[in-house]
Amino acid sequence: MQENNLYNITHTTTVVETLKELLTVSNYSSLFVLVDENTKQHCLPIIQTSLPPAVIIIKTKSGESNKNIESATYIWKQLTEREADRHSLLINLGGGLLSDLGGFSASCFMRGIDFVTIPTTLLSQVDASVGGKQAVNLLGLKNQIGVFRSAHHVLIDPVFLKTLPSEQILSGFAEMLKHGLIQDETHFRQLQEIGISDHQLISDEVFGNLIQQSVAIKKQIVRADPYEKGIRKALNFGHTFGHAFESFFNSSGKNITHGHAVALGMICESFLSNKKTNFPLHDLLSLVAFFTTHYPLRKIHRQDYDTLIEWMTHDKKNKSKQINISILEKIGKVKINQIVNNGDIIEALDFYMQLYQ
Amino acid sequence: MQENNLYNITHTTTVVETLKELLTVSNYSSLFVLVDENTKQHCLPIIQTSLPPAVIIIKTKSGESNKNIESATYIWKQLTEREADRHSLLINLGGGLLSDLGGFSASCFMRGIDFVTIPTTLLSQVDASVGGKQAVNLLGLKNQIGVFRSAHHVLIDPVFLKTLPSEQILSGFAEMLKHGLIQDETHFRQLQEIGISDHQLISDEVFGNLIQQSVAIKKQIVRADPYEKGIRKALNFGHTFGHAFESFFNSSGKNITHGHAVALGMICESFLSNKKTNFPLHDLLSLVAFFTTHYPLRKIHRQDYDTLIEWMTHDKKNKSKQINISILEKIGKVKINQIVNNGDIIEALDFYMQLYQ
Repeated sequence: MQENNLYNITHTTTVVETLKELLTVSNYSSLFVLVDENTKQHCLPIIQTSLPPAVIIIKTKSGESNKNIESATYIWKQLTEREADRHSLLINLGGGLLSDLGGFSASCFMRGIDFVTIPTTLLSQVDASVGGKQAVNLLGLKNQIGVFRSAHHVLIDPVFLKTLPSEQILSGFAEMLKHGLIQDETHFRQLQEIGISDHQLISDEVFGNLIQQSVAIKKQIVRADPYEKGIRKALNFGHTFGHAFESFFNSSGKNITHGHAVALGMICESFLSNKKTNFPLHDLLSLVAFFTTHYPLRKIHRQDYDTLIEWMTHDKKNKSKQINISILEKIGKVKINQIVNNGDIIEALDFYMQLYQ
Repeated sequence: MQENNLYNITHTTTVVETLKELLTVSNYSSLFVLVDENTKQHCLPIIQTSLPPAVIIIKTKSGESNKNIESATYIWKQLTEREADRHSLLINLGGGLLSDLGGFSASCFMRGIDFVTIPTTLLSQVDASVGGKQAVNLLGLKNQIGVFRSAHHVLIDPVFLKTLPSEQILSGFAEMLKHGLIQDETHFRQLQEIGISDHQLISDEVFGNLIQQSVAIKKQIVRADPYEKGIRKALNFGHTFGHAFESFFNSSGKNITHGHAVALGMICESFLSNKKTNFPLHDLLSLVAFFTTHYPLRKIHRQDYDTLIEWMTHDKKNKSKQINISILEKIGKVKINQIVNNGDIIEALDFYMQLYQ
């Protein structure tokens, strides 16, 4: 993936020292930190003492609707006007949205400058931080414009999770569950046992270990297939329906977190797993029970089906307009490149609707 | 350079057959051709019979001022609305501006789709087509936003040069001269002998061979250093002053071609070569005589120096605001990473001004 290192991820509980050391051994001509209004308030103070006085802060706005080419252009103009050069460094301090936007901006600025990602949400620690996918949205389509390029370094520290609202923790937890479901039953069972009803009760050490395991699973898959030609598609389990739910609810003003939408997507795609493979019915039912406990079902109507299907047909995994999903053969084992037709999708949505009727 | 092949360049005199064959053996889900108003009129008819009926034409505008993020966004929206997917192909039919814009757009669409470049100007055949630099301008700065990514295939056919005005031929010729000057004295002497007073008089075969030689020089340099960490900077000979001249004249409405500006830049940087190394005075004088015959000097004034220096300080090769240029030790041999200060630049501009006084 370009000349960068895909796997330069440090798990730490002393991010200030780790960052200070990294900046000391490097020789950047200037240093920029990208924040949004939340991370400026809650996270920048945490790392402030690692930063040299000449650091330049660029502020962007939080919110999925700001993850677009206009925000990237704003960052490019800021970097230009503040005289960044090819040897400057951009530190992305924020969640997945900010790190995708900042990663894309750094990757295209003067054809690519180094960037360091410090993910501050659970979702970005276990998902967005690893894999080198940088992107912004276009025309409401998620990550339509982007590149594959890895952060020069990723620093993961649970300290940033302390101030997160529990819906943000749940959002990241859904991706961790997914990692277990597609690749590692033990990881899934551990997560299932812990649940996540109150993450403040889980010790930093236990939480840090679970994060590290989850990241390791993703890393292993991405390493095997960095450009998503094959097995990396496994990571899309739950995401074909999940992205459609996310776009659908967010565009109608009923905001939903990414992980919550993916959890609902995993319900539908587990149903299709049972329909298309030997994925056992009792596993399907137990997954549904577990997911619905943590991720309340959101109401859809029959007349929404066309809209949802329309979102799915724009999925980047598709080829020649056929909808292509990843499903489970069993817990811990995935099957990619499964073509589903409109009938399958309607059945899955019917199944989903029955759950709350 | 991602998973693409840097060196997939075909020199042909039967572009219709070559393209048809390429499309037959590939398996793209849909096919787009990017043109501007000129190539739509003059070049699209030439390749039309190689294209399947379902091809979709995207039209962009010619002109450096349209090589920007807004034009890229227009292309991304067109691709999205016309249902391009990851397995679609974009063919860029045009000069360097169009192929840079199209290459950047394809490289970021869904994190990168394949693109084929068919350069239709001499400049793009010998320069932009090889090396995998894709970019657009920002805030008047050339190629400020971009990526390194190579075309899936480049098809070079002199047939497209037939209808070009001679100033366009001269523009490409300047880059060919540069290739000779930095790397291959024989190539330079051949070009010098042929001159280019009337390119219609040069046979297709001779011209095709010279193009092939020039491309081979660039390929060799890029292969050695794809990301411009070292020797690839040699290709920037003439370009620090050249880009400044280009931005300066174009922004004041006195349009100048890229090659013409680079030729004037090579005059200044040859002067600095003589000042900073043992580059012989008689070579400097003979280069000046040759360049000024083909590339008329454009008037600048002392009060323009600050503006020109300001453009140079934004050059991407710089580090920590120091201006870094490539100079000649002798004809066919280059020296990179030469720091020049304001005094050097002023001396070079004074030398340039004396030439027409």
